[in-house]
Amino acid sequence: MEIVFKPIGVVHSPFKNKDEIKKARCIDPKGFDSVQGELEIFPEFSEGLKDIDGFSHIILIFAFHKSESHSLHAHPPFDGSERGVFSTRSPNRPNSIGFTVLNLMERKGRVLRVSGVDMIEGTPILDIKPYTPKEQKPDARFGWLEQWTVPPQNVEPKTKK
Amino acid sequence: MEIVFKPIGVVHSPFKNKDEIKKARCIDPKGFDSVQGELEIFPEFSEGLKDIDGFSHIILIFAFHKSESHSLHAHPPFDGSERGVFSTRSPNRPNSIGFTVLNLMERKGRVLRVSGVDMIEGTPILDIKPYTPKEQKPDARFGWLEQWTVPPQNVEPKTKK
Repeated sequence: MEIVFKPIGVVHSPFKNKDEIKKARCIDPKGFDSVQGELEIFPEFSEGLKDIDGFSHIILIFAFHKSESHSLHAHPPFDGSERGVFSTRSPNRPNSIGFTVLNLMERKGRVLRVSGVDMIEGTPILDIKPYTPKEQKPDARFGWLEQWTVPPQNVEPKTKK
Repeated sequence: MEIVFKPIGVVHSPFKNKDEIKKARCIDPKGFDSVQGELEIFPEFSEGLKDIDGFSHIILIFAFHKSESHSLHAHPPFDGSERGVFSTRSPNRPNSIGFTVLNLMERKGRVLRVSGVDMIEGTPILDIKPYTPKEQKPDARFGWLEQWTVPPQNVEPKTKK
C-alpha cells in the first residue's frame, strides 16, 4: 500500500542546507524560536488559507526531502545515546515526514511569515493545520529528553550530569 | 513532484467508520480524551519504538484513508461558517494527512495502548514522534475556534452566542 502526496507549497528559510541547520542546533539548543522564514502556498491552494490569520501558531507538516537514508535508530546530537527513531525527531525515519509548530506572524496573500523555522530552503509543504487547545499538554512527561530540558517556556540548555 | 509513503502500522479504534466518529464528536465536544485504542506497529519497524515508553504523549501522523474528496473549504460541525481548510482539521484536505496528540498509556512490544483516539479502525499510521516541550504553547491564540473553547485543560462546550 502506497500513499501519495503532492506539495501544496514551499518553505523559504535562512538555512540553505542540512549542515547549516545542524550548526544552528549546536549554537542555540533552545531551538529555533527566533528564526524567521516564509511559507509560500501555491496559487491553486491559497483559498484554503482563509481564516488562518487569527491563529498565533500553526502546525506545519512537510517532507524531509533531503533525507537520504532512514534508520530505526537515531543519535540525537546533544544526547550521545542511541534512541529508537520514533522517540526522536530525526529526519532519517521510515517515512520522511517532518512536523513543526510555527509562530504565525503575518499573512500576506498566499505567503505566511513565520518564526520557529527549523527546516531548509525549498522544503516541500504537505499540510498546514491550526494549533488548537487539544495540542496543549501542560502536564506532559518527556522520557529521555527530560534530562535535556527544563519546564516549558523556560528552556535553557543543561550541562549533562 | 510526488511524495510516496508506506504505512508503518495500523490504528485499532472503537470507531468502525466515519459516521461513528461524527456522532461521537457531537455527543462529546470536549473531544476524544477518554477514547482508548491501540497503535499496532508492523514487526519490521518495532525496533524504532525503543525509548518511547517514557513519553506521556506522542504525535501520531496518519492517513485519512477514507477521505473521498478534498476541498479548500470546510464547515466545522459546531461552527456553521465556511472556513479555509488549512484553518481547520477537516479530513477532506488537499493531502489527506491526519495529526493527533495521543496519551501513551502503555507499550506492549510493538503495540502502543493510547487514549485520545479520534481516528477509525484500520487507519494507516505514517509516523510517530515524541511530544516535546516545543509543542507546548501556553499563550497561543485560536482564531475562529476561540468562541468554541475555554482555556486548555478545562474545556467545556460553550453555547453559541
